[in-house]
Amino acid sequence: MLVDGKQYQSIWIENEKVFIINQNLLPWKFEIKELKTSKDVINVINDMEVRGAPLIGATAALGVYLASKESKNETEFNIIIEIFRNTRPTAVNLIKGIDAVLSKIKAKAFLDCWSKNALAAAEIFIKNEILACKKIGENGLSIIEEIQKKNNNNTINILTHCNAGWLACIDHGTALSPIYLAHNKGIKIHVWVDETRPRNQGARLTAWELGKHGVPYTIISDNTGGHLMQIEKVDLCIVGSDRTTKDGDTANKIGTYQKALAAKDNNIPFYVALPYSTIDFNINNGLLETPIEQRSSEEVKYIEGFLNNKIQKVLLTPDNSPVANYAFDITPARLINGFITERGIFKQPVNFIK
Amino acid sequence: MLVDGKQYQSIWIENEKVFIINQNLLPWKFEIKELKTSKDVINVINDMEVRGAPLIGATAALGVYLASKESKNETEFNIIIEIFRNTRPTAVNLIKGIDAVLSKIKAKAFLDCWSKNALAAAEIFIKNEILACKKIGENGLSIIEEIQKKNNNNTINILTHCNAGWLACIDHGTALSPIYLAHNKGIKIHVWVDETRPRNQGARLTAWELGKHGVPYTIISDNTGGHLMQIEKVDLCIVGSDRTTKDGDTANKIGTYQKALAAKDNNIPFYVALPYSTIDFNINNGLLETPIEQRSSEEVKYIEGFLNNKIQKVLLTPDNSPVANYAFDITPARLINGFITERGIFKQPVNFIK
Repeated sequence: MLVDGKQYQSIWIENEKVFIINQNLLPWKFEIKELKTSKDVINVINDMEVRGAPLIGATAALGVYLASKESKNETEFNIIIEIFRNTRPTAVNLIKGIDAVLSKIKAKAFLDCWSKNALAAAEIFIKNEILACKKIGENGLSIIEEIQKKNNNNTINILTHCNAGWLACIDHGTALSPIYLAHNKGIKIHVWVDETRPRNQGARLTAWELGKHGVPYTIISDNTGGHLMQIEKVDLCIVGSDRTTKDGDTANKIGTYQKALAAKDNNIPFYVALPYSTIDFNINNGLLETPIEQRSSEEVKYIEGFLNNKIQKVLLTPDNSPVANYAFDITPARLINGFITERGIFKQPVNFIK
Repeated sequence: MLVDGKQYQSIWIENEKVFIINQNLLPWKFEIKELKTSKDVINVINDMEVRGAPLIGATAALGVYLASKESKNETEFNIIIEIFRNTRPTAVNLIKGIDAVLSKIKAKAFLDCWSKNALAAAEIFIKNEILACKKIGENGLSIIEEIQKKNNNNTINILTHCNAGWLACIDHGTALSPIYLAHNKGIKIHVWVDETRPRNQGARLTAWELGKHGVPYTIISDNTGGHLMQIEKVDLCIVGSDRTTKDGDTANKIGTYQKALAAKDNNIPFYVALPYSTIDFNINNGLLETPIEQRSSEEVKYIEGFLNNKIQKVLLTPDNSPVANYAFDITPARLINGFITERGIFKQPVNFIK
């Protein structure tokens, strides 16, 4: 999507080199970074310079390419792959990105053109992810157009949580993909952007990318969405997913569940937008079986903001306060009106085709 | 309650002088401030150096005393009272505090010992508010004791939103009053403290006062409560109120409604603790008739924290981002299991006695 008029992806390959946008510096600094080694890949996933389930998958896929290039033998290579697998626990795309590339190279003996094949496999994986996001946009557009008809062409207010835009997804986005497409088609859209504490991906990333593309938005604290729904200022909710079970239970950024409850209570349609790569067919009970990442307490105690022309952290709590920091929650399928995927909109997850 | 071993109230009178704790500096600095004029009163309410419905009421009551002392005539006095009335729109206690004092002085001609009578009336009003909070604690204790029995004396996890402790309420608190009493009686309590964006009254004030009193607590982002309820880490929710209608609809800090929805969805008891002075018998429809304050967008765009030994504000969003900042929401009575008041626990608001 566009940044100051120029087309960007959140990860891309140029002359066999891998580049990302350092998302930890947004919205205040736009910095491109080359990932040269598998260690770079581990660091940018761990530090969340790249984040969002599909982008984590793409980064890991290209990580396999870098690992195959730098490893002296298969044992060394396998150790790196194991580290990749354990960088972030919740997003299933991480595993899928790694396995998509491994499946294409493991048939041949090590170093027998692994790195070349890995690059080709990662490129195909990424191309398919971008295509999936584009299709999600096209499929999701119908929901927005339907509301537009009911709304007599008044502005449609859509609430989203966290960042499920092109920054999270290589290009287009998942939750934001239908929004960009609708906006591009001239439908009047306004987005309520949940701040998304503790890491503020909404206030920092979603606000930045919507603004850069010219989509009208308003930032709200995470506490506000329920009230806006009560006073009829929300027509539709669309969020992304980090892992959706075959029964439709959806792990997404912490706080998604509370928004889904508010949407249900106010009879507002609540959709999850996700590529098929985010569906985990191996899990039966989303709440009990999805691993929920707990991150550092520092992320809640301190917050990053911009002051005196640099990004600085300020303390938000009394010294030595105990803090809990769950990164995701599970929205039960019963609260979700439908799943917008590249293969169509599924009202019932039972229709997911493996 | 205790601060480093010394007993404090959040507002008090000493030799006919009025003192407050500047809550905008907590938890990092503990500063006592004298309110010398009605202008001081207006400023500390507007700037939220004092906040919380009962404390706003007490401050306004003492404001009437200061206004009567400094006014040259009744017209001047009435102008100040009108400004008081318009400082904050949602907390009904503001009006009640003012009117409680006015009713005791207006019978006599102006300046005919108004200031002396106003001080006496404000002192009685404040004494009654403290007594109400103490009784709320005693009445609410039974709910905690009941859970303790079911819990086999394991730690009871109570979630609260914003600050409805002694800082908000002169002394004891509303939501926190039963918690302090239970803790003092040796019942094992742990409090989940919602951060409470945008002004972080939870992370700053509730965490501070619980910590100073020795009650175990953990700070969480506002997004987290729903998940904790899903995974059975919450036994009880208690929140305060800024205005409760005769039918039980409750205006409280923005985000309360989302917590009540999550409690209902997980079958966790959700109580509102409030003095009778917070009940508004003049409103029929809480959602439509309660005035909801919208505050400055700066409160969402910037956040205050501690850095380099001073309180500093950092920018959280892209420059010029549009922001909405609703300060309260309405929790419908149907989501509330009971109202803990100084006159007892009401399961049904219909039993409120005017």
